[in-house]
Amino acid sequence: MGDAQKSAGRKSKKTTKKHLMVFSGRAHPELADEVAAALEIGLVPTTAYQFANSEIYVRYEESVRGCDAFVIQSHTAPINEWIVEHLIMVDALKRASAKRITVVMPFYGYARQDKKHRGREPISARLMADLFKTAGADRLIVVDLHADQIQGFFDGPVDHLMALPILASHVRDKYGDQELAVVSPDAGRIKVAERWSARLGGAPLAFIHKTRSTDRPNEAVANRVVGLVKGKMCVLVDDMIDTGGTIVAAAEALMKDGAKGVIIAATHPILSGPAVDRLKNSPAVEVVVTNTLPLTDEQRFDKLTCLSISPLLSQAIREVFEDGSVTKMFDGQA
Amino acid sequence: MGDAQKSAGRKSKKTTKKHLMVFSGRAHPELADEVAAALEIGLVPTTAYQFANSEIYVRYEESVRGCDAFVIQSHTAPINEWIVEHLIMVDALKRASAKRITVVMPFYGYARQDKKHRGREPISARLMADLFKTAGADRLIVVDLHADQIQGFFDGPVDHLMALPILASHVRDKYGDQELAVVSPDAGRIKVAERWSARLGGAPLAFIHKTRSTDRPNEAVANRVVGLVKGKMCVLVDDMIDTGGTIVAAAEALMKDGAKGVIIAATHPILSGPAVDRLKNSPAVEVVVTNTLPLTDEQRFDKLTCLSISPLLSQAIREVFEDGSVTKMFDGQA
Amino acid sequence: MGDAQKSAGRKSKKTTKKHLMVFSGRAHPELADEVAAALEIGLVPTTAYQFANSEIYVRYEESVRGCDAFVIQSHTAPINEWIVEHLIMVDALKRASAKRITVVMPFYGYARQDKKHRGREPISARLMADLFKTAGADRLIVVDLHADQIQGFFDGPVDHLMALPILASHVRDKYGDQELAVVSPDAGRIKVAERWSARLGGAPLAFIHKTRSTDRPNEAVANRVVGLVKGKMCVLVDDMIDTGGTIVAAAEALMKDGAKGVIIAATHPILSGPAVDRLKNSPAVEVVVTNTLPLTDEQRFDKLTCLSISPLLSQAIREVFEDGSVTKMFDGQA
Amino acid sequence: MGDAQKSAGRKSKKTTKKHLMVFSGRAHPELADEVAAALEIGLVPTTAYQFANSEIYVRYEESVRGCDAFVIQSHTAPINEWIVEHLIMVDALKRASAKRITVVMPFYGYARQDKKHRGREPISARLMADLFKTAGADRLIVVDLHADQIQGFFDGPVDHLMALPILASHVRDKYGDQELAVVSPDAGRIKVAERWSARLGGAPLAFIHKTRSTDRPNEAVANRVVGLVKGKMCVLVDDMIDTGGTIVAAAEALMKDGAKGVIIAATHPILSGPAVDRLKNSPAVEVVVTNTLPLTDEQRFDKLTCLSISPLLSQAIREVFEDGSVTKMFDGQA
Amino acid sequence: MGDAQKSAGRKSKKTTKKHLMVFSGRAHPELADEVAAALEIGLVPTTAYQFANSEIYVRYEESVRGCDAFVIQSHTAPINEWIVEHLIMVDALKRASAKRITVVMPFYGYARQDKKHRGREPISARLMADLFKTAGADRLIVVDLHADQIQGFFDGPVDHLMALPILASHVRDKYGDQELAVVSPDAGRIKVAERWSARLGGAPLAFIHKTRSTDRPNEAVANRVVGLVKGKMCVLVDDMIDTGGTIVAAAEALMKDGAKGVIIAATHPILSGPAVDRLKNSPAVEVVVTNTLPLTDEQRFDKLTCLSISPLLSQAIREVFEDGSVTKMFDGQA
Amino acid sequence: MGDAQKSAGRKSKKTTKKHLMVFSGRAHPELADEVAAALEIGLVPTTAYQFANSEIYVRYEESVRGCDAFVIQSHTAPINEWIVEHLIMVDALKRASAKRITVVMPFYGYARQDKKHRGREPISARLMADLFKTAGADRLIVVDLHADQIQGFFDGPVDHLMALPILASHVRDKYGDQELAVVSPDAGRIKVAERWSARLGGAPLAFIHKTRSTDRPNEAVANRVVGLVKGKMCVLVDDMIDTGGTIVAAAEALMKDGAKGVIIAATHPILSGPAVDRLKNSPAVEVVVTNTLPLTDEQRFDKLTCLSISPLLSQAIREVFEDGSVTKMFDGQA
Repeated sequence: MGDAQKSAGRKSKKTTKKHLMVFSGRAHPELADEVAAALEIGLVPTTAYQFANSEIYVRYEESVRGCDAFVIQSHTAPINEWIVEHLIMVDALKRASAKRITVVMPFYGYARQDKKHRGREPISARLMADLFKTAGADRLIVVDLHADQIQGFFDGPVDHLMALPILASHVRDKYGDQELAVVSPDAGRIKVAERWSARLGGAPLAFIHKTRSTDRPNEAVANRVVGLVKGKMCVLVDDMIDTGGTIVAAAEALMKDGAKGVIIAATHPILSGPAVDRLKNSPAVEVVVTNTLPLTDEQRFDKLTCLSISPLLSQAIREVFEDGSVTKMFDGQA
Repeated sequence: MGDAQKSAGRKSKKTTKKHLMVFSGRAHPELADEVAAALEIGLVPTTAYQFANSEIYVRYEESVRGCDAFVIQSHTAPINEWIVEHLIMVDALKRASAKRITVVMPFYGYARQDKKHRGREPISARLMADLFKTAGADRLIVVDLHADQIQGFFDGPVDHLMALPILASHVRDKYGDQELAVVSPDAGRIKVAERWSARLGGAPLAFIHKTRSTDRPNEAVANRVVGLVKGKMCVLVDDMIDTGGTIVAAAEALMKDGAKGVIIAATHPILSGPAVDRLKNSPAVEVVVTNTLPLTDEQRFDKLTCLSISPLLSQAIREVFEDGSVTKMFDGQA
Repeated sequence: MGDAQKSAGRKSKKTTKKHLMVFSGRAHPELADEVAAALEIGLVPTTAYQFANSEIYVRYEESVRGCDAFVIQSHTAPINEWIVEHLIMVDALKRASAKRITVVMPFYGYARQDKKHRGREPISARLMADLFKTAGADRLIVVDLHADQIQGFFDGPVDHLMALPILASHVRDKYGDQELAVVSPDAGRIKVAERWSARLGGAPLAFIHKTRSTDRPNEAVANRVVGLVKGKMCVLVDDMIDTGGTIVAAAEALMKDGAKGVIIAATHPILSGPAVDRLKNSPAVEVVVTNTLPLTDEQRFDKLTCLSISPLLSQAIREVFEDGSVTKMFDGQA
Repeated sequence: MGDAQKSAGRKSKKTTKKHLMVFSGRAHPELADEVAAALEIGLVPTTAYQFANSEIYVRYEESVRGCDAFVIQSHTAPINEWIVEHLIMVDALKRASAKRITVVMPFYGYARQDKKHRGREPISARLMADLFKTAGADRLIVVDLHADQIQGFFDGPVDHLMALPILASHVRDKYGDQELAVVSPDAGRIKVAERWSARLGGAPLAFIHKTRSTDRPNEAVANRVVGLVKGKMCVLVDDMIDTGGTIVAAAEALMKDGAKGVIIAATHPILSGPAVDRLKNSPAVEVVVTNTLPLTDEQRFDKLTCLSISPLLSQAIREVFEDGSVTKMFDGQA
Repeated sequence: MGDAQKSAGRKSKKTTKKHLMVFSGRAHPELADEVAAALEIGLVPTTAYQFANSEIYVRYEESVRGCDAFVIQSHTAPINEWIVEHLIMVDALKRASAKRITVVMPFYGYARQDKKHRGREPISARLMADLFKTAGADRLIVVDLHADQIQGFFDGPVDHLMALPILASHVRDKYGDQELAVVSPDAGRIKVAERWSARLGGAPLAFIHKTRSTDRPNEAVANRVVGLVKGKMCVLVDDMIDTGGTIVAAAEALMKDGAKGVIIAATHPILSGPAVDRLKNSPAVEVVVTNTLPLTDEQRFDKLTCLSISPLLSQAIREVFEDGSVTKMFDGQA
Repeated sequence: MGDAQKSAGRKSKKTTKKHLMVFSGRAHPELADEVAAALEIGLVPTTAYQFANSEIYVRYEESVRGCDAFVIQSHTAPINEWIVEHLIMVDALKRASAKRITVVMPFYGYARQDKKHRGREPISARLMADLFKTAGADRLIVVDLHADQIQGFFDGPVDHLMALPILASHVRDKYGDQELAVVSPDAGRIKVAERWSARLGGAPLAFIHKTRSTDRPNEAVANRVVGLVKGKMCVLVDDMIDTGGTIVAAAEALMKDGAKGVIIAATHPILSGPAVDRLKNSPAVEVVVTNTLPLTDEQRFDKLTCLSISPLLSQAIREVFEDGSVTKMFDGQA
């Protein structure tokens, strides 16, 4: 008997298949549903609930062995609940033999605690990266991180998606016939505004200088507009709107400076506490956000436009699953 | 010039000092205060609050460099909030150069999820151990784990304390002149009852057999009492009381069997949902617990006696700090 | 020349194949042979022997590069020899570029040291999990762990198989026409008996209460039978039989209580020291075990029935290799 | 014989001493000498050289066992040589049983590669943190990181020192009687300028807006000065000066805008390529830097003032060694 | 609707493809080009350069997601530059989602520092292994390590290739008709010489005993030839030629002993400092090396024959990519 | 109340003490007793035995919290038993809060498997280093490793002791008045012989060339003596004697070459199988070894001299405990 035959007798060979499976936590199921629909698959049926003492229980209702798992959870309030659920879901996948686990965070919790502002503080954004790594995450998909450096907090690949094309496309379609200006609400985020400007055909830039009056630094006098906005429709851009204080003050400063109108655009609608009232009463004609975070009925109001981030997420998941390129989705930027 | 002198010129020597510092999260500050008082030190002043979107912020108000840190947090509801706060506190200590970090969990969250009861479940109790390790925990101090094996989930030393001496001492002092029996509410916890029996001078044992009727297993007929309890004051013992269903049913079965009375004793008073009502209306003459978990005013009722676990925790902390023996505190058992 | 062509020129693509390869240590080659036969493959030819100073040498005789490796070793006496051999086999596979390494432990050594019974003991069951992880194990396949929590000791997927269907099927076929009762040899293992009962069509349950006489706890009086066994054929079930003391005493208690007969069933036949003599001389009509551990000729006796665990192991290996479901093999329980 | 005596017989006790030892690589020995002198100790004699094929060899000439080691190396050009030497020094300390290893990087190499600017780039600043961790670093001391988030790249404590007090003190002493303004060379670094302003008694702020002309973004028109600088002595501040292009252009813009004069202040004098010529020929009256990086004779010129960073480093080392507070050195900011 | 359909609706399946991609650092691009050509693919287009302060920048110009990456860099002088570039390339691949990363080191830097020759030295060869692991290397391919034990420094598979077949084949073809002897330049490398002897049809062995005169050990008298070399064409073999001192002295000793001629053969042509002059002026008729390291024009001379190692490397890469056998390439030796 | 007072109130300070504790496994208690006696302390009382199924149980009988632990075990046959016991002892120390754990291996098991001699072999010596690291070892103390590179297998400090001073001192005292020669039994160990020569006042060197006849390599003709040994008392040196074949053949060759006599000296007396008979019947006048491994009565014979290694081990332990220098013990060599 030949060597090849003996060898064949000893091994069992099989062509390897990849299985794409998408999972969702309970924080924002609508978004996960949209993503799954765009991928033309169903979400994996999952049991999840809280015990009497608020501990979370999770179980998958079908085999996940060998799958390429994508686990979606929006880190919305109550944010610690959803983060722990997210971690537990990853642990269950690891122990159930998923082949690769990609944690999808449309909004990355604790991203603003990305450094020690003062001594003896935590760096919670790094801690989150390590906790997910420990639970079993192989890779992350995130959208518009508060600081790009957070990519470096995770020990593995991070696909950093940008909502800009989605937001900018909406603004261009609706306001493209007007004279636009792109405005950053503070000096530290002008780079984002520059990208918007490029997307909007080179619209002029401006930004708000939260001046403590250049001469009296201890007195927070006013929001000075830097750049020419008179008579222009201003697109005020940021990564997130939390309590809305900064961005609404910026909108008011623009109007005072003679802007024709203001459109507010941000990726993440946290909309905590007074945010909705502030935005409603602001001079903004429209507030454009995406659904990286869920909105309650109370958080929705007439001027608010919520665009879906799911086409972006589903395309990224497909590229990752099929070994395509996420970088190409953003012309080499991501 | 001699060698010794040269060497002296090159090194700066100093006798090493150890500094004991105790920290508390916001879940159960009363307990931490008691522990610190028993150690005759103050808690380290700590700023901790939630941002508008429910992210937690923590900062220590004095230098913790080089300290031997003990960080106390009770994992009570909302349990995920307090676990994340606990993790963030450890991260802040690690980054602020604490020398050694001992995580003190009077109640260990997710301890009941210590195995996969069915396929595709997480093992959350192991996950918790790993998360704390990742955040920077060097060691744990815990009280009455749901299963002893959980000690093995943490990759490092675990000091496992037992509330038994505290609880049993109270019972003996108050009911020692009566004829006592020790009863376990289910067959799986007889070992705990045996330890109680030894503590109570060899009181007879009994337990409740949650029988699906030995002949008709699918029909959950009744709680059968195994052992002689007639005319005896029964001490019904468990590690925790969550919704109280099992233990109250056991108390009722004991009374039906002719017990003279029932005392319920458990370490961890979770007291979720209907627990308080059930216990109030139960035949138990007294419910004895410890303060490993905080009790709200609504959770307190006439029959409830809450003993302090702080003498135990403070002694353990002192033994750990001073390189003494925790094992000796329990006659070689822990 | 187009971009696609250039790209094609730069990459070499190939459809991925999976290769199943099964390896066996020297502790229990018969079992590994059976498993390989059931999978219709041969065991990978392996050189293994001991040097003069008792160091173990291992080498695989054919390429294992890229294979999906399953390494079988029963942790039988001399248990430390076989555990070290098992570790060395995993190291050799890792360094020879096996793609995935599944450690198959029909019997998991040191499983009974799963906690610190007293202070300053090791937790050897956790240590074993870590040693195999360090050597290169990606995942485990185990049968009937002494405690379910041991699954949580390994940082990765553990497929926990149950011999119950195999053992129960034998009992049902042979004794199904008699009136059966299922008996647990001690109070801590009633859950296992419940599963047996369900398998045997709802046979009534009983258990042995190793009573230190409920009234005189320091005196180990007797084995009290709880449940009705009179006139019934009793199936006495446990996870392992080591020296046989407990289970034989239980059998005697059952007979004294009027049982019609006793069948002993356990997964792991350690059968140390006096076990064989005790079992031979016991009232049991049959002792049913599986071959998770090898039996010497001296360990075989007339009443002993040894069922093969290899159908279970081979099916589990196939499910793991083919990304099927192990959970389904046990109706969602594993 | 009593128990205490037996115990005494079994243990050998000793009061623990800490030994401070400071080591220096070959990149910038002058700085290390200054630091050691300020600590009133000598540097540990070290043999270090390159083999014929450019491999680096390092050996310490006296015992380092049990010491608290601080290893200083400036990551200057040829930067990869010095980084590898730094790593090798840490490895040698680890293997020679140093108790704790603090890596002191007056300038942190690769800090500017702190994120992926485009897809398929490395995050070299994170890589550096991991390499030093792997070699054996327990903690870092760094000065003025390019981005604060880099603290979060290292898995351990990072003491982040600020040269601001040293630089600002020099400027205040020399120019404090003039009307000062603090200017940031680009919009992204206004926060640093704010700290300067506070140090200089509330001097007004300005910054350079590298405007692509707000109306014609693709055309890099000019450096626009934002803020009032007319007639003022401008302190132009940055973290480092590499080729000097940006900062010299900023100085020219300030003069064009009517500034009375310009002082350039930066922590890290990289001074690559054309930097020296540009600075010499710039309108700046003085260029103030620190010696975090060594300066060659060619890099020194009349207008250049180089202040020593060694008081800061030596104080930080002392605080770390003595478990003092580094945070207090900066009023709670670090 | 059937189960299969539902399942199909939930998963997206795809046959897995492997993509081979080869990358090259800037140390020795000619070798990488040869390897890629032999594999009939192109090198992945890569941007790599040094910033003004000598930091290295790397970016891949096409998607590497999911690829099986082989990254080639020769650790030649300036060796630390190329090692850091190699590490950065691995980091970029890891973060860009390469599936598996094989680091190819034709010459392994710092291999001679494989132990502490004296106390307080580093073990730089182990450090290198750990640094590459940390950066993201899954496996190594190396050629003729200075000590075989270095394989054990890396925590993962190491394919250790031997240049012997290539070198020996050249010698046999050219000098096979003469009476050959194989000579080791020192007593520690006779094993290599034995392998050469086997390859050359059993040519007699000899070696140089760098004798401190057996009688006067402190006096480095001479290189004594052990073995009969009179009238024979001697093949003097080693793993590397650095400064050439040892091997040229050996050649001279052979000629003095009556050898007919000397051929020098070594895998790695470091050729530092005086090596070229020494070799040119040596009695060797030919110096045969491979191109594991690049040769400058100054390093080439008439007697030097440089054979290509690329057939070996490309075959090994193909075997690794296709799950073939590298061991078979060397008849079971590697 | 002042700040300092408040702070004092918050911390509890204590001078740190170090406690030296020495532990012994069951493989070679005599050696551990000697070491403890030399340190003037007792061994820590330890319970250790085997269960019926050969699993090992270990428990320390007194508190080890905070101690500086040294755990001695000789890796003698049955070697896997003692290695597993050693690992379990380390685990128990880690979990019982020992502060630092030094594993003392007078003989390092599996040291000869320090590389892959052929493909698909393990590198068991590296595996051992990793297993001890995983169990909790912080550092190693070893004696005369088979290859120096094994130091690099452990990720931490390794103190590598040499028995040479002890062995050489004995030889010099006893045979110093005769004309000595130092002989290595094979060409690969001449370095060791050189060190011996230096110790013996420059005694001439020789070695045995296991020649396959330089002309007929496949025919293992003879052991050729290289160097002048005629009329000399030859000290034949090696690191270990396993079956004794090589060294006895070497002794015979020396006698045949006219040596006056032969003394065999080796650190590790494994003395497996035929070793004792071979040595007894050899021409050696004396066989000098140390007690790094235990000798049974059968392994002792008239010509055998066994010197104690305990002075070396105890001095090394003291230096490590007291932060002294091990390197100085060997004049900078270790």
